[in-house]
Amino acid sequence: MSILIVGTVAFDAIETPFGKTDKIIGGAATYIGISSSYFSSNLNLVSVVGEDFPPEGIKLLKKHNICTKGLQIKKGEKTFFWSGRYHDNMNKRDTLETQLNVLENFDPIIPEEYKDSEYLMLGNLMPSVQQKVLIQMKKRPKLVVLDTMNFWMDNFMDDLKISLKQVDILTINDEEARQLSGEYSLLKASKKILAMGPKFLIIKKGEHGAILFNNTDIFLCPAIPLEKVKDPTGAGDSFAGGLIGYLESTGDTSFENIKRAMIYGTITASFSVETFGTKKISSLTQKEINKRKELINKITKFDI
Amino acid sequence: MSILIVGTVAFDAIETPFGKTDKIIGGAATYIGISSSYFSSNLNLVSVVGEDFPPEGIKLLKKHNICTKGLQIKKGEKTFFWSGRYHDNMNKRDTLETQLNVLENFDPIIPEEYKDSEYLMLGNLMPSVQQKVLIQMKKRPKLVVLDTMNFWMDNFMDDLKISLKQVDILTINDEEARQLSGEYSLLKASKKILAMGPKFLIIKKGEHGAILFNNTDIFLCPAIPLEKVKDPTGAGDSFAGGLIGYLESTGDTSFENIKRAMIYGTITASFSVETFGTKKISSLTQKEINKRKELINKITKFDI
Repeated sequence: MSILIVGTVAFDAIETPFGKTDKIIGGAATYIGISSSYFSSNLNLVSVVGEDFPPEGIKLLKKHNICTKGLQIKKGEKTFFWSGRYHDNMNKRDTLETQLNVLENFDPIIPEEYKDSEYLMLGNLMPSVQQKVLIQMKKRPKLVVLDTMNFWMDNFMDDLKISLKQVDILTINDEEARQLSGEYSLLKASKKILAMGPKFLIIKKGEHGAILFNNTDIFLCPAIPLEKVKDPTGAGDSFAGGLIGYLESTGDTSFENIKRAMIYGTITASFSVETFGTKKISSLTQKEINKRKELINKITKFDI
Repeated sequence: MSILIVGTVAFDAIETPFGKTDKIIGGAATYIGISSSYFSSNLNLVSVVGEDFPPEGIKLLKKHNICTKGLQIKKGEKTFFWSGRYHDNMNKRDTLETQLNVLENFDPIIPEEYKDSEYLMLGNLMPSVQQKVLIQMKKRPKLVVLDTMNFWMDNFMDDLKISLKQVDILTINDEEARQLSGEYSLLKASKKILAMGPKFLIIKKGEHGAILFNNTDIFLCPAIPLEKVKDPTGAGDSFAGGLIGYLESTGDTSFENIKRAMIYGTITASFSVETFGTKKISSLTQKEINKRKELINKITKFDI
């Protein structure tokens, strides 16, 4: 089995109350790929960068066993760049600058040997680009996970609704779930969103955890309390990476196993936010992951 | 064993996106008393109302086996009145009017037979009033739970800090924990607050649950996702009532049992917010409580 990850590989410049970075390597697919590498070793990437993307970036991906054959490098063009500032409470951020660059005309070309990937992770991208990926697959993957955001809801809702019909797991945050459904109660929102197509809905709530819904069940996934959140960039992607990596490694896409996968996603996300960029998430040990697994068991169990 | 509850018995006028009430019976001690009555049958109340407080109010308390001998009724005076408006998201509210009335000079007089209560619940009141209660107790109760709010931190921090030294369990919300500690991370905040005196700290996060801390352990208590939150007034008090009621009924104040008590508090709070005022919380059945207990078990359990 293998995972096909489609998403951005990018430069980020980040400012938080704990510091500031120059252009560092980021992007949804980068965080997803690195996080899933702790569970799965068959990782295929489809993305696009410019000529300015450094060899260290490619090396970082390869270090995590991510095949970069599907990474287009556009001569004479520049890599997607995002710059943002987080405020004191880390829940709100301002975008300071967005340079689409190579992303403006991104045409995702799936290498032949990726086309039968059983696990497909569609990172946050224009819905029409996500559809172009789905069309190229030889057969319908066993599991399609799609991440999206409010920007696409504001501007490409019709396209997004077409994508949603083809999705197994949709991951969005609470604000986005409210926007997509027009309902404030997440319970009511989940019903409306599941009726749009996804078999499972994961609503991410940052430091408050996440909630998994299908038509009959609910799971409240906790988040790990942290001493210091230095940079929330990539938290949702690190969550999705841990999630799909674990699902692929076990080959089990049942509700019960998605619950377990969310716990692993919570763990990878918890490491991701502790340093700027991919610093911590790219150097995890199995021991560290296990320790956090024990912690999350310890702080959530009760017996009534 | 018995519980002594000291707090407000009041009139509220509430406006939410789901409707509006005239003056209805509310107050921290009312919600605490009613919620704890599903677990404990030895409930003593110390509070104050005016001559305008209706017989139905007293009847409501008595129906829940709450002894009202300690409820002062001030002739020629008026009951404490609060009026507020909740916004769309129910997390923010504006106070429209506060009439302190009888509360202005409230001198809590503890009837002789209440003075050896082993469980003491100090509802949200001026810290100096909370201290006047503690001083009158014959011996130090087995468990003192104290609730407070940002208003007392803004205006009576020194008094509050004296109260905190005598507390077993402090219950505050996340914003208040940040204000009291000056730390954004709730983990860091908990350490500073525990150093101020409380043996246990419960940080309430509304729809996101609550967190229990002591010096060595943490427990993430979930909240029950609800279709409709009609009126959040009294949610924290209903939580505290379920909590202390369960603790008294079991006589066990260990960390493990406080975890269980929080789950029961979460359950009583979840009913409280489903209707305006005390309508739902005052007519619960054991069957309804058990059903929600099963639900919370079902939606939180995972196995990794």
